[in-house]
Amino acid sequence: MNTFGRELRITTFGESHGRAIGVVIDGVPAGLPLTEEDIRKELDRRMFCHIHWLNPRCEPEEFEILSGVKDGHTQGTPIAIVIWNKKAISSYYDELWMKPRPGHADLAYYLKYGKFYDHRGGGRASGRTTAAIVAAGAVAKKLLALVGAEVAGHIVELGGVEVKRPYTFEDVKKSWEKPLPVVDDDALAAMLEVLRKNAAEGDSVGGGVEIWAVGVPQGLGEPHFGKIRADLAHAAFSVPAVVALDWGAGRQLAKMRGSEANDPIVVKGGKPGLETNKIGGVLGGITIGEPLYFRVWLKPTPSVRKPQRTVDLAKMEPATLQFKGRYDVSVVPKALVALEAMTAITLADHLLRAGVIRRDRPLKDPVV
Amino acid sequence: MNTFGRELRITTFGESHGRAIGVVIDGVPAGLPLTEEDIRKELDRRMFCHIHWLNPRCEPEEFEILSGVKDGHTQGTPIAIVIWNKKAISSYYDELWMKPRPGHADLAYYLKYGKFYDHRGGGRASGRTTAAIVAAGAVAKKLLALVGAEVAGHIVELGGVEVKRPYTFEDVKKSWEKPLPVVDDDALAAMLEVLRKNAAEGDSVGGGVEIWAVGVPQGLGEPHFGKIRADLAHAAFSVPAVVALDWGAGRQLAKMRGSEANDPIVVKGGKPGLETNKIGGVLGGITIGEPLYFRVWLKPTPSVRKPQRTVDLAKMEPATLQFKGRYDVSVVPKALVALEAMTAITLADHLLRAGVIRRDRPLKDPVV
Amino acid sequence: MNTFGRELRITTFGESHGRAIGVVIDGVPAGLPLTEEDIRKELDRRMFCHIHWLNPRCEPEEFEILSGVKDGHTQGTPIAIVIWNKKAISSYYDELWMKPRPGHADLAYYLKYGKFYDHRGGGRASGRTTAAIVAAGAVAKKLLALVGAEVAGHIVELGGVEVKRPYTFEDVKKSWEKPLPVVDDDALAAMLEVLRKNAAEGDSVGGGVEIWAVGVPQGLGEPHFGKIRADLAHAAFSVPAVVALDWGAGRQLAKMRGSEANDPIVVKGGKPGLETNKIGGVLGGITIGEPLYFRVWLKPTPSVRKPQRTVDLAKMEPATLQFKGRYDVSVVPKALVALEAMTAITLADHLLRAGVIRRDRPLKDPVV
Amino acid sequence: MNTFGRELRITTFGESHGRAIGVVIDGVPAGLPLTEEDIRKELDRRMFCHIHWLNPRCEPEEFEILSGVKDGHTQGTPIAIVIWNKKAISSYYDELWMKPRPGHADLAYYLKYGKFYDHRGGGRASGRTTAAIVAAGAVAKKLLALVGAEVAGHIVELGGVEVKRPYTFEDVKKSWEKPLPVVDDDALAAMLEVLRKNAAEGDSVGGGVEIWAVGVPQGLGEPHFGKIRADLAHAAFSVPAVVALDWGAGRQLAKMRGSEANDPIVVKGGKPGLETNKIGGVLGGITIGEPLYFRVWLKPTPSVRKPQRTVDLAKMEPATLQFKGRYDVSVVPKALVALEAMTAITLADHLLRAGVIRRDRPLKDPVV
Repeated sequence: MNTFGRELRITTFGESHGRAIGVVIDGVPAGLPLTEEDIRKELDRRMFCHIHWLNPRCEPEEFEILSGVKDGHTQGTPIAIVIWNKKAISSYYDELWMKPRPGHADLAYYLKYGKFYDHRGGGRASGRTTAAIVAAGAVAKKLLALVGAEVAGHIVELGGVEVKRPYTFEDVKKSWEKPLPVVDDDALAAMLEVLRKNAAEGDSVGGGVEIWAVGVPQGLGEPHFGKIRADLAHAAFSVPAVVALDWGAGRQLAKMRGSEANDPIVVKGGKPGLETNKIGGVLGGITIGEPLYFRVWLKPTPSVRKPQRTVDLAKMEPATLQFKGRYDVSVVPKALVALEAMTAITLADHLLRAGVIRRDRPLKDPVV
Repeated sequence: MNTFGRELRITTFGESHGRAIGVVIDGVPAGLPLTEEDIRKELDRRMFCHIHWLNPRCEPEEFEILSGVKDGHTQGTPIAIVIWNKKAISSYYDELWMKPRPGHADLAYYLKYGKFYDHRGGGRASGRTTAAIVAAGAVAKKLLALVGAEVAGHIVELGGVEVKRPYTFEDVKKSWEKPLPVVDDDALAAMLEVLRKNAAEGDSVGGGVEIWAVGVPQGLGEPHFGKIRADLAHAAFSVPAVVALDWGAGRQLAKMRGSEANDPIVVKGGKPGLETNKIGGVLGGITIGEPLYFRVWLKPTPSVRKPQRTVDLAKMEPATLQFKGRYDVSVVPKALVALEAMTAITLADHLLRAGVIRRDRPLKDPVV
Repeated sequence: MNTFGRELRITTFGESHGRAIGVVIDGVPAGLPLTEEDIRKELDRRMFCHIHWLNPRCEPEEFEILSGVKDGHTQGTPIAIVIWNKKAISSYYDELWMKPRPGHADLAYYLKYGKFYDHRGGGRASGRTTAAIVAAGAVAKKLLALVGAEVAGHIVELGGVEVKRPYTFEDVKKSWEKPLPVVDDDALAAMLEVLRKNAAEGDSVGGGVEIWAVGVPQGLGEPHFGKIRADLAHAAFSVPAVVALDWGAGRQLAKMRGSEANDPIVVKGGKPGLETNKIGGVLGGITIGEPLYFRVWLKPTPSVRKPQRTVDLAKMEPATLQFKGRYDVSVVPKALVALEAMTAITLADHLLRAGVIRRDRPLKDPVV
Repeated sequence: MNTFGRELRITTFGESHGRAIGVVIDGVPAGLPLTEEDIRKELDRRMFCHIHWLNPRCEPEEFEILSGVKDGHTQGTPIAIVIWNKKAISSYYDELWMKPRPGHADLAYYLKYGKFYDHRGGGRASGRTTAAIVAAGAVAKKLLALVGAEVAGHIVELGGVEVKRPYTFEDVKKSWEKPLPVVDDDALAAMLEVLRKNAAEGDSVGGGVEIWAVGVPQGLGEPHFGKIRADLAHAAFSVPAVVALDWGAGRQLAKMRGSEANDPIVVKGGKPGLETNKIGGVLGGITIGEPLYFRVWLKPTPSVRKPQRTVDLAKMEPATLQFKGRYDVSVVPKALVALEAMTAITLADHLLRAGVIRRDRPLKDPVV
């Protein structure tokens, strides 16, 4: 449905051109410092307003925390966040009614929800709804910080341009100072060029991102159906446009022999660890204290300005569609921030499931 | 934990060298024809006993249905299936105690469960435990058959050998008449050669499989967190050794432009459908009546006979490990059957979630 | 946590004196007629504004539907409803800070949430939060109406005054035309007298209500942990101040012999049914097509104006507390509406779980 | 369905006259001492074999732990327990086929499962299936012991005979040395007399039990839908034949005024606590460190030897039924043990949900 997680549970709602979108975040213990600024920071990261030609009318989100926070701390009760929709120009979408856009959710919604769904701006299927996920991710990241864990991602492929040079987690985090989070400046320049070209031609591009989670404690996850890998795959494929995922070295591992693929176990600082980390920090579904990383691949934005073949559902006959509304040349940058958020939410959920963070008492209580 | 699904729910248990493994299947309506033969057929498919050199001591599973079935039909109550473990030679594993095998779950289990876990034969992390999933999959496949849906998979890559020629879903199903389910005879021959070579050298290989689900009705899945893609990704990554997944055309979609990636919508038999199906039958997380397909990539079996570097956890110093027990040269064939099962379970769960199959009354009741 | 239900799922949020309370209702199929008026009607029923001396400053709730509804129908997506909190006078509560009110949740919240919780107006534990449940109940009642089922309750005891004369379900529904829903006019007069007396003396009273669900189809519920009785008990005890529940004839059944307690099975209109219905319409946890009914007992409002003994948590020494804010002389009337709502939500959830209402397609779609 | 709990999860299966009944217990951390003897002790308590005339052919259960336990400790993996059904004489039940027993689940099962369910011995609805719950309760009690909490219950009413004298929790525990756990010897004698009389007359009686949970830490439970009271109500009503529940002083509270009902808050050993405990240890759904207690009322066994009116479902005409099989004169003693188990399971689940017991590492690991 629209709820994700077991002990940290987020419930999202809202359509793109409706009154608002939002999220209820449940399971956060009392006493976590949390301000509107924490939420705003992540919502702003998602917007990439600084690339003006990419988002010509970019504006910061307007949101409110309706519950669960008092005096800069969580109360232990559900945190409801509403992100108000701006006055949108929906007339672009009038032509699309009953003419499902190829590659978009329109056809599926028509079959499942009939004439009742709000198709304007993509409605419930709009990438815009990931803003609610990103707001929840801001809270999850603060929970992770309690145990010294952090999540960050970057773009590794865009419009066919791939990042090829080696990098560290520090490089990943620093890449956010650039126009797009790309560790390799040459690749970044080429990517921006591809984006400009596609914007000019009314087309779109896909790409790939890599998410890292560092400092995640050992012992999270379970052998069969609570595997960290499986829960994060679920999380990642919940983000619109995701079409593939490689865990750790991913598909390359499938081409290796066992003697190559296995990461030797070594003593590190008096504790057992991996010499290499091709497996991405998880063995048998359980974290071992090594960094987690995985790559996620996204298809191009389905909305393009080129004419496309579709069906007029009222007449049930072929039709041509030309989209005239706003669209993102690539969903990759925004999806990256949503994927960071989903990763943080999933891992914070596991911290609570495993009891690493307790909830029978406040996180800190100077009164007691 | 060890339960998967919402309305069709499977709960698995058991360690590789313990008394038994098994599964409880909950949510099946009364009146579904089900016999031991249905279960046995799937358990046999998983074993590939016919490739003698691959499974030198291959024997069919011994199992019992303990509840939920009477006179060849389901009762509507939980179906418990126990698969008895055979007298296993665990002495191979004595040396491994406190010497975690690289690439295996040992190290993670040691960190999470301490000295309490049963490491013999891989314990709870053993690929053997997927037999319980396969038994549950047999039931799920019968539920899918009620609406005319079927699931089948095949091997598309093994030890670096790839299937390259085109094929149909009929080819996929017919490939099960061959020693391994590979649609391309040349590729099959090369794969068998690679397997033999690695068996001789005490090494292992990974590969990839493709799962198809055909006849799945429209309207299953939900826009945000009950996406069919996300639930199937969760399902697939629950199978041991899975490291990557491509939905539909997968990573290739990420390299296309929107105008190429979108599948045109056309009229098919008086209804809207896709001209091509690069997206794998799901739009916005919801089925549209087109076939679903995805590829899953598996790493090589971590157990190999070559010496490997590990740590002696008792002394916390480097150690060398040489595994002498039985192992599968590749997990790919067995995992394929488990992936078919997980796919069938996930989709049957969605049939129940959406109410396509009702549960307030028996499937058929000549009495009424 | 703050989510209830499996296929119809409500998630509530909000503190009494915070910005707003609200609810997200998930799982409703597309095409259910739903207007603000439907919600308002139930919110108004909960307020009993017509008894002026009971609610001196009674005002209708201000609420908004933020998502999931378009043109008077549900979209199939989550329905978020926000009920704005009015400018509340919180100064009454300043004295209560660190002086937990006996009988209220204050002490428990202090222990679990420390200084971080919002104690004003009872915060998250306030009876006010049941308005969100009542809003969700309005939607659930409309789902029940699809299959001809309806839920209604009445007061059977208040301040020690009991309803003793026999009545029908029609009487129960008609009792809502009176100041309080009580089928017996003499009892009603006595109850109003008791309420007035306690209001004057600054004390409060408890009581009991009975909930009926008529027209519920057969075959809902499951034998072990999805029992209708157990799910409704869970639902009922989720409403604040509930301290006891009698299912059907309840505790009286415990005093009978088997030969008296069993309801004879008879042919009714060509189908098997019960001659009497002491068991309250459920056998073995499953509905049989007979009316469901149960009684729920509520303790008196803990907030009273009489001085009470408590502890000053800052000094950890005895203290006396005198509450000066507004309080309800009895929670029974409002809780009754909340219990109707929880009953409707639980039963509508079971209609979806069992597939009686489908969700792979809209409820009605003239387009198709 | 047949799964109960969130972080401690039990899944039961089995029909009374099928091959076996059983339970899978999931979520127990590694390192909990657990032997067959722990399970057997609780299964034996449920049987009351020492009252020979009550259970003429009483025999201890035969069971096996199939997984999750090694060398006297839990492994952290699911614990599957199978309780084998004995060779039962099912011929008693032949006459009952298509003639539903009044008061039993037969009619409901016929409507929901049609001719497919196993009616022999009550099938899935048999009280016998609570043995699986009791086995799981044995494990939950050991988890509670980790934090110093314990659960025990006693009979407070049977066949109309009530316990009236005051007692302590020690009295409750000591009452288990008697033939039936009744704190008052006079009441016990009268109850045994009533049981004998009803056994002789082929009738049955109901009654009431009280469950105590002492030593439960503060801060468990949540304000809205994870209320301890609501979860325990759900737990209690999951036991067959339960028809009413009083939490704490229960219905008596509903007759008091607020000034009487509220328990004064006092300083106890330097901490805040309750002077009296009419509310049963829970405020606002959350534990406060005081003992929990509640009473549960059970209807008489529906199976009696007296002739009863029913319907022949094949002919759809009135019929008379005379049951000739074995039956329990009262379900109260066995249900008491099941209710203790459900209470322990629910509270242990909350210990895990709140993170009081962690699961990222073993409970104790001398190796580390």
